[in-house]
Amino acid sequence: MYLMRIGAAGSEKPVVRVSDESYVDVSDLVSDFDESFFSRGGLEALRGPVAERIASNAVSPFAGERVGAPIARPHQILCIGLNYSDHAAETGQAVPAEPILFTKSPNTLVGPNDDVRIPRGSTKPDWEVELGIVIGKRTSYLDSVDDARDAIAGFVVVNDVSERAFQIERGGQWSKGKSAETFNPAGPWLVTPDEIDDVLSLGMWLDVNGVRRQTGSTSTMIFDPYFIVHYLSQFLVLEPGDLINTGTPPGVGMGFKPPIWLQAGDVIELGIDGLGVQRQTVIAPRP
Amino acid sequence: MYLMRIGAAGSEKPVVRVSDESYVDVSDLVSDFDESFFSRGGLEALRGPVAERIASNAVSPFAGERVGAPIARPHQILCIGLNYSDHAAETGQAVPAEPILFTKSPNTLVGPNDDVRIPRGSTKPDWEVELGIVIGKRTSYLDSVDDARDAIAGFVVVNDVSERAFQIERGGQWSKGKSAETFNPAGPWLVTPDEIDDVLSLGMWLDVNGVRRQTGSTSTMIFDPYFIVHYLSQFLVLEPGDLINTGTPPGVGMGFKPPIWLQAGDVIELGIDGLGVQRQTVIAPRP
Repeated sequence: MYLMRIGAAGSEKPVVRVSDESYVDVSDLVSDFDESFFSRGGLEALRGPVAERIASNAVSPFAGERVGAPIARPHQILCIGLNYSDHAAETGQAVPAEPILFTKSPNTLVGPNDDVRIPRGSTKPDWEVELGIVIGKRTSYLDSVDDARDAIAGFVVVNDVSERAFQIERGGQWSKGKSAETFNPAGPWLVTPDEIDDVLSLGMWLDVNGVRRQTGSTSTMIFDPYFIVHYLSQFLVLEPGDLINTGTPPGVGMGFKPPIWLQAGDVIELGIDGLGVQRQTVIAPRP
Repeated sequence: MYLMRIGAAGSEKPVVRVSDESYVDVSDLVSDFDESFFSRGGLEALRGPVAERIASNAVSPFAGERVGAPIARPHQILCIGLNYSDHAAETGQAVPAEPILFTKSPNTLVGPNDDVRIPRGSTKPDWEVELGIVIGKRTSYLDSVDDARDAIAGFVVVNDVSERAFQIERGGQWSKGKSAETFNPAGPWLVTPDEIDDVLSLGMWLDVNGVRRQTGSTSTMIFDPYFIVHYLSQFLVLEPGDLINTGTPPGVGMGFKPPIWLQAGDVIELGIDGLGVQRQTVIAPRP
């Protein structure tokens, strides 16, 4: 299944995508794709009714509605740093011996095509295409990496927007440069694992103003999604609907010589094979 | 006012403390002390009804109910590191030029007297008495430090429980050692600012097994609560009900030579003048 939330920001309705043209409205069955939905097994419970509606042609055409993030604001957004060996190299840092964890404020979550706003005082805004993991159930102390498969509801494209001066030059912990409003476009879809042939070999890319800046594949991740979920579960409790951004391949603005920073008016397009495409316009700081 | 939540974990009811012996039940007026409550001005709206109930003696005696955290699980728990100059010294680190931000998972929040569970694999569990700020309204880009006063719903005692090996020796960002279950006892009360003479001169202390380990005062904070709220609002959006742990005075286990780490069976008691006292028993890791 491909979960989506469409409509105005803050009042999106949950739907299941059938094709590029149409969807099944499930807003009469579930209030939102949120912690409660995932925790009560709502994802599996949707499969029957959605199949019936598709069979009876109870589908609706997309009609230019805004696309929201495919999940409600999560309990937490966790991020893994430097998780592609060639990205670590471009930032001048060593390949980590174990996953580096940092966080973003949950209210950074926005739709895949919403504007990305440059924060006030920003001098080094940057992009990062990433594979996002959405957690499907409460998860703590997984016994094995393989057990992580049952903990994952699905995968999403995310842009882990970053302000490098805030992240690196303002006091030592990365969250400060990761949490500005609009800094976590996600979607367009939450894709359930059964729809993906091999999550460990998905091509990923990001363009700025039509120029290809990032090209990569999940095949070059240092720590794969199952390793990450197992690993994090040893340190904290993952809640249903939590989002984990798993790191970015080479080609971020910080890695160019000289570096390239986002500017108001820039258009960012990014995607991952099978998970859809995002398109954001970068806008100026709040006056 | 002194807000409290009492009852079994996960089904606490909101009340307003009148004295050590009695409270006003407000669970018919508000469902919880959560983001929605603070965002709609629920705190100010409670004052009239609570005063009426006290006047008509509609109070209830505390009867051994468990005390929960005084706020519901927040959107985010932000923490300021090394915010007391003598604590920075004891950890061997420089006094920061601006606030160091890190985070804890929101589901670490527990009641002030709940057990603190040592995580699996932990070798260096530690304590930190701290002043917590609860945010009262959505806050972004405050114009001045003084404006932060209007953004604060109240203050709480927190124990920012920490696993120093996870925090410092496992990959470079502090959140990893701050987010285990039960790692954020808070309460017993959320105290509104009008009840506190001077939040910048509150004594604070922490005992382990009856031995005084931390002694300090908010007067020696490097960055005071108003500075912190103004500062954070330049980097991210604070939501109503968000919790900010503002750093700890000297005397953490890591600072002793040799260091002192928590062990199962230890009893931690801590408090801040006017904000109440906590008492936790440290328990062994999950089997």
